[in-house]
Amino acid sequence: MNQSVSSVGAMPPAAVQVGAELNDEQRARAQRQLSLPGFGIESQRRLAHARVLVIGAGGLGCASVPYLVGSGVGTIGLVDDDVVELSNLHRQVAHSTANLGVAKTSSLAQAAKALDPTVTIIEHNLRLTAENALEIFADYDLVVDGSDNFPTRYLVNDAAQLSGIPLIWGSILAHHGQVSVAWHEYGPGYRDLFPTPPEPGTVVNCAVGGVLPGLCGTIGTLLATETLKVITGLGDLLVGRVLIYDALAGRTREISYGRDPQGSPVSELIDYELFCAGAEPQPEAISSQELAGLLRSSAVPRLLDVRTLEEREQLHITGSQFLPLDELESASQAERSFGLLGSGELIVYCARDPRSIRAAQLLAKRGVPVRYLSGGIHEFAPFAPEFTATDAVKASTSNSKENS
Amino acid sequence: MNQSVSSVGAMPPAAVQVGAELNDEQRARAQRQLSLPGFGIESQRRLAHARVLVIGAGGLGCASVPYLVGSGVGTIGLVDDDVVELSNLHRQVAHSTANLGVAKTSSLAQAAKALDPTVTIIEHNLRLTAENALEIFADYDLVVDGSDNFPTRYLVNDAAQLSGIPLIWGSILAHHGQVSVAWHEYGPGYRDLFPTPPEPGTVVNCAVGGVLPGLCGTIGTLLATETLKVITGLGDLLVGRVLIYDALAGRTREISYGRDPQGSPVSELIDYELFCAGAEPQPEAISSQELAGLLRSSAVPRLLDVRTLEEREQLHITGSQFLPLDELESASQAERSFGLLGSGELIVYCARDPRSIRAAQLLAKRGVPVRYLSGGIHEFAPFAPEFTATDAVKASTSNSKENS
Repeated sequence: MNQSVSSVGAMPPAAVQVGAELNDEQRARAQRQLSLPGFGIESQRRLAHARVLVIGAGGLGCASVPYLVGSGVGTIGLVDDDVVELSNLHRQVAHSTANLGVAKTSSLAQAAKALDPTVTIIEHNLRLTAENALEIFADYDLVVDGSDNFPTRYLVNDAAQLSGIPLIWGSILAHHGQVSVAWHEYGPGYRDLFPTPPEPGTVVNCAVGGVLPGLCGTIGTLLATETLKVITGLGDLLVGRVLIYDALAGRTREISYGRDPQGSPVSELIDYELFCAGAEPQPEAISSQELAGLLRSSAVPRLLDVRTLEEREQLHITGSQFLPLDELESASQAERSFGLLGSGELIVYCARDPRSIRAAQLLAKRGVPVRYLSGGIHEFAPFAPEFTATDAVKASTSNSKENS
Repeated sequence: MNQSVSSVGAMPPAAVQVGAELNDEQRARAQRQLSLPGFGIESQRRLAHARVLVIGAGGLGCASVPYLVGSGVGTIGLVDDDVVELSNLHRQVAHSTANLGVAKTSSLAQAAKALDPTVTIIEHNLRLTAENALEIFADYDLVVDGSDNFPTRYLVNDAAQLSGIPLIWGSILAHHGQVSVAWHEYGPGYRDLFPTPPEPGTVVNCAVGGVLPGLCGTIGTLLATETLKVITGLGDLLVGRVLIYDALAGRTREISYGRDPQGSPVSELIDYELFCAGAEPQPEAISSQELAGLLRSSAVPRLLDVRTLEEREQLHITGSQFLPLDELESASQAERSFGLLGSGELIVYCARDPRSIRAAQLLAKRGVPVRYLSGGIHEFAPFAPEFTATDAVKASTSNSKENS
């Protein structure tokens, strides 16, 4: 973490125009906000005219979006390609049991519309990538990042900077959360605070490490408040400062940071999965097409699923072995028990790439000939559904050897 | 504010029994919480067995209850006697436009059930009073106070102490919020931090002063996190510490406080409206029955409504004049313009008592013969509906003199 004391002056409202006169309903809804000292009708008209892009309709999106709607933000874009799962609901409280299996963007849009049917919600039911980010960002005045992984966080930072719009970002892990505002025109960005991604494997994600539900709420609502402040020009923004909350300790602290003098300027978007995979040698990839070809041939490869049991129960590649990444990481000898050191190449897969890249790196260091499935089961399943199965966990748990 | 540095050691989990074995669904819902370091299955079983009473289904209740449900709290009681109004939705985001006019307890119960149909919600659709508090508290293991007024806050503190259960309290105003835990067995309470209520009129409420929506979310979610910690014994509680968040500044601070050496022990519940009405002479009250009698007689009194325009539009006493409390307070000469100094007694009313007591005190000091309507229009309207009307605002705004 690159930290230094910086002083950032007051900032004007974001480049959001003052919209049309408010109608009676807008005025009635905003009544308790319009009566705030310093919060004039012009602020409310800016909010109504603002277009806010929210990355992630999970723990942080579910907490921030309702308050953005309540504040009177007129247009909200939601980016997410996941569907609602039972284990999400403990912290993703704008979703519901009735919406299990529904796209998260659609489920969160429903919640937003229930609060205020006049809000415009644009559902981007996709994964944000270096290929689509700039085109999507072009339609928005500012972006709120509530994503759950490092590649996306760097991508959003860079895309916001290239698009010239302010970014309000939050992150959570276990019982810690952070919030800051990266507005390139006025202060440092995410890359200035974290010039390099953490070493893969040193930081677990929420699926593995867990998270306190209320923490998502606290960080998500702080995102909503900073967003309102950016749009209206009200108060002192978290520019050049990161607010850190430790939920277990019940304590907060602030770290000031400035621009990284060693930082190279962001001139284009890059491959963020590779960027976050660290300095270790990159493992070789195998495409969905290539794997399907192998499975159809007589040279069927050994396959290893490194996701969680819950993910595996929903969908897995038939005949694959199972060893979650955290177990693979914590027990360096674990692979011996499962015959992973046996003859021939091993192909590891996860939902997408990050965990399988990490697993392949670990196994390569331990002498296993290994490749990872590029795009993960997420890309493979629609491509070759005949090689996937659900719920057949008992027949293919980690200590079965059906394919070895 | 009575403040001192205090050191509070680790506390055991609240007196909540470890409940039955979790079923498969409970386990699946809690998966991302069970994987937290230090968070065992026993913690989850305590949560499932816990009975949490939430005072207020407004800004703080709407933010905390969904996360309590998500955490796996098995039984939640909701105390509130209001209905959902349009101006609530900007910050009370668990309610919805479809539920306008519905009891807030019922609306919040719906939201909780949508998240997890197996949670038990007990709706206490009433106002918490010194008469009913102890009986209600007896059924719960701990209480979360998200109320919006000082009399209730002192009442909840005293009732929690007399009932021997921990209290997690939060308060919000404009752009400031506070959270602390008052667990009498282990540390100081609300009265130790605030031995005397603020002078009436020095602190506005949300209806008058406004509030930032995200702030409610942040304080409400902090309440949910502290509640989870109290139930499970996890982490360091906000006992003897109050966490303060200034949303405009984007800064937090903590104040430590200890037991007030001058504090008298709480031995019984008192009249909290009177306690918070301050040291000024108490104005005389008139009951609903007595007022209805006068209105039916030939000695029709002059009536003054000191609520907001929005409240008045929904329901008011026919023929009453109108001057919101904040205008009455800010312009000491305002009453002259409205002929309030005219002949005969004036009866002031508000929704309940606090604002009308304050207004009566102000007017008495200015020489107006005055009484206030005890119980407010809230008690009067069901008692004598023939003397109330809705929406006839244009005919009875502040500068009309229809009854003078």
